[in-house]
Amino acid sequence: MSARPPASVEVVTVGVDIGGTNTRVGVVDRDGNILGEDRHPSPETVSALIATVSTAIEKLGRGLGTDLRIGAVGVGAAGLVDREGTVCYAPNLPQLIGVPLRSAIGDAVGMATVVDNDANAAAWGEACHGAARGVRDALVVTLGTGIGGGILVNGSVYRGAHGFAAEIGHWQVDPDGARCACGQLGHWEAEASGTALGRLARERAGAGQAPGVLARAKGDVDAITGLHVGESAMAGEVDGQALLCDLAQQVAIGFAGLANVLDPELIVVSGGLVHLGDLLLDPIREEFRDRVEGAARRPPIPVVAGALGDGAGVIGAAALARELVL
Amino acid sequence: MSARPPASVEVVTVGVDIGGTNTRVGVVDRDGNILGEDRHPSPETVSALIATVSTAIEKLGRGLGTDLRIGAVGVGAAGLVDREGTVCYAPNLPQLIGVPLRSAIGDAVGMATVVDNDANAAAWGEACHGAARGVRDALVVTLGTGIGGGILVNGSVYRGAHGFAAEIGHWQVDPDGARCACGQLGHWEAEASGTALGRLARERAGAGQAPGVLARAKGDVDAITGLHVGESAMAGEVDGQALLCDLAQQVAIGFAGLANVLDPELIVVSGGLVHLGDLLLDPIREEFRDRVEGAARRPPIPVVAGALGDGAGVIGAAALARELVL
Repeated sequence: MSARPPASVEVVTVGVDIGGTNTRVGVVDRDGNILGEDRHPSPETVSALIATVSTAIEKLGRGLGTDLRIGAVGVGAAGLVDREGTVCYAPNLPQLIGVPLRSAIGDAVGMATVVDNDANAAAWGEACHGAARGVRDALVVTLGTGIGGGILVNGSVYRGAHGFAAEIGHWQVDPDGARCACGQLGHWEAEASGTALGRLARERAGAGQAPGVLARAKGDVDAITGLHVGESAMAGEVDGQALLCDLAQQVAIGFAGLANVLDPELIVVSGGLVHLGDLLLDPIREEFRDRVEGAARRPPIPVVAGALGDGAGVIGAAALARELVL
Repeated sequence: MSARPPASVEVVTVGVDIGGTNTRVGVVDRDGNILGEDRHPSPETVSALIATVSTAIEKLGRGLGTDLRIGAVGVGAAGLVDREGTVCYAPNLPQLIGVPLRSAIGDAVGMATVVDNDANAAAWGEACHGAARGVRDALVVTLGTGIGGGILVNGSVYRGAHGFAAEIGHWQVDPDGARCACGQLGHWEAEASGTALGRLARERAGAGQAPGVLARAKGDVDAITGLHVGESAMAGEVDGQALLCDLAQQVAIGFAGLANVLDPELIVVSGGLVHLGDLLLDPIREEFRDRVEGAARRPPIPVVAGALGDGAGVIGAAALARELVL
């Protein structure tokens, strides 16, 4: 046995999760625990974003004990991020389009930095520390305002030829469907996201068919969001639960298509809608099972909730950074 | 330099392509050339299939020069094939469901044998000797009676957790669409395959809107198939070309979804419809380009015809077998 040094310093990493609404910066240890975290509304200019992230990292670093040292920074951003860490396309973060985020943040903080798509980061978090741990081929789906995804192939995040893979919300499931945030019609994201749930609830409440949901929005149809549906369903109301079942069917249609294309061992559901738990997941499982090609003659593909909650993005981005340290 | 032996024996491999209609058996050299081939209607029993394949291999082996020796057998079968080489699900080859094809054929011919899905085999053929040569991440789509696919990831065929990946024809693109061969409604295969083209042509001819196509079916609406549409379009007739453009739009919808999920460097189109060449591929390219997420801000994904024609399955299966020899 070799002698252990009297005082050892553990290297930790920073995970940054830049969403359309909020930016979160966290320090994460090698076991995936968030040791400290800062949250801010996502700044509207690149320079403000860089400043916010730098300041947060400095502050978080000062709060660490002397036995911990920040070694690298990982960033997940809501958009298409190329292999050089430049944001190429980001409908919800237009201020970042064309920005070489990896070098911009890396230069500002003076540390090795990696940038990836936010859903890829969340998937890597679930792979390293969550529900997809030890699974070689898995699909992690982020169900929230939109739909994102991360594809795990042979135990790594699959990024495709240009780094843009797993834009799983963007395929047509209905030519007559709603307009997607990307501008096209009937994409899965437009039919199966939290945004779709809110739209469906407003339609139904407007027709007098969702009194419980409507009451939770104080009687204002236009104010109804997916959150009110969730509250109604969790309170055991029939109209909220019926809306969740309708959403579940749309979710299952996409899961089945993705299962047929990717044949994952497991589908992990992450993102804002996951707090609904089995109220949403059970009807998804029910609708999904028989839609998979050859369902009766193949092993079923489990659908499980992510284990990291809304910390998946930060934890996963920090885990991406850990690969720079090793 | 080492001395070369006076007489060297080159190892060749056999590729077997078992489709819903025909079974092809070919001897293929290391450069992907088919040295000899046998074709038969696909036998209706397993024992007849094994006998047909064994006899064909024996006959083809006898026809080889003394400088060539068959070293292994690769099989592509139209269905879900698990990692042990057992056919789990095969709507077009029900006689094979549950059959451990790898050991059945391997034992009969006394050679190392590998079995995979037929579209995976075709994709591997295009990867080793065709249009996807040297490409790490590509999608090979087999457009014919149905739609199959093979996904190349990091230069290998991606098979998924159970061996069932790339069933790309089976995702919903239209909830009100036609019934798919698998029984579900509005799958991409039901809307964008050669079968869909024939159906669309019959509808249009029945409404008096496809006189050129109808004439090629001798005036019998019910006899119209996709082949008549192809003939009409190749002869420069407007109705045949309009039908191809409508099909191209459906094909492009699926290509865009798959491009968003997989981000391939290249999409290779293989299968029966490829003989239409740019008459079909040009409108596909046109419709596909702007449907890809972030199209204006990312490198375009070329859509090209496969280079191996209808030999892709045999050549690819033989290339899979070559890996057993090496």
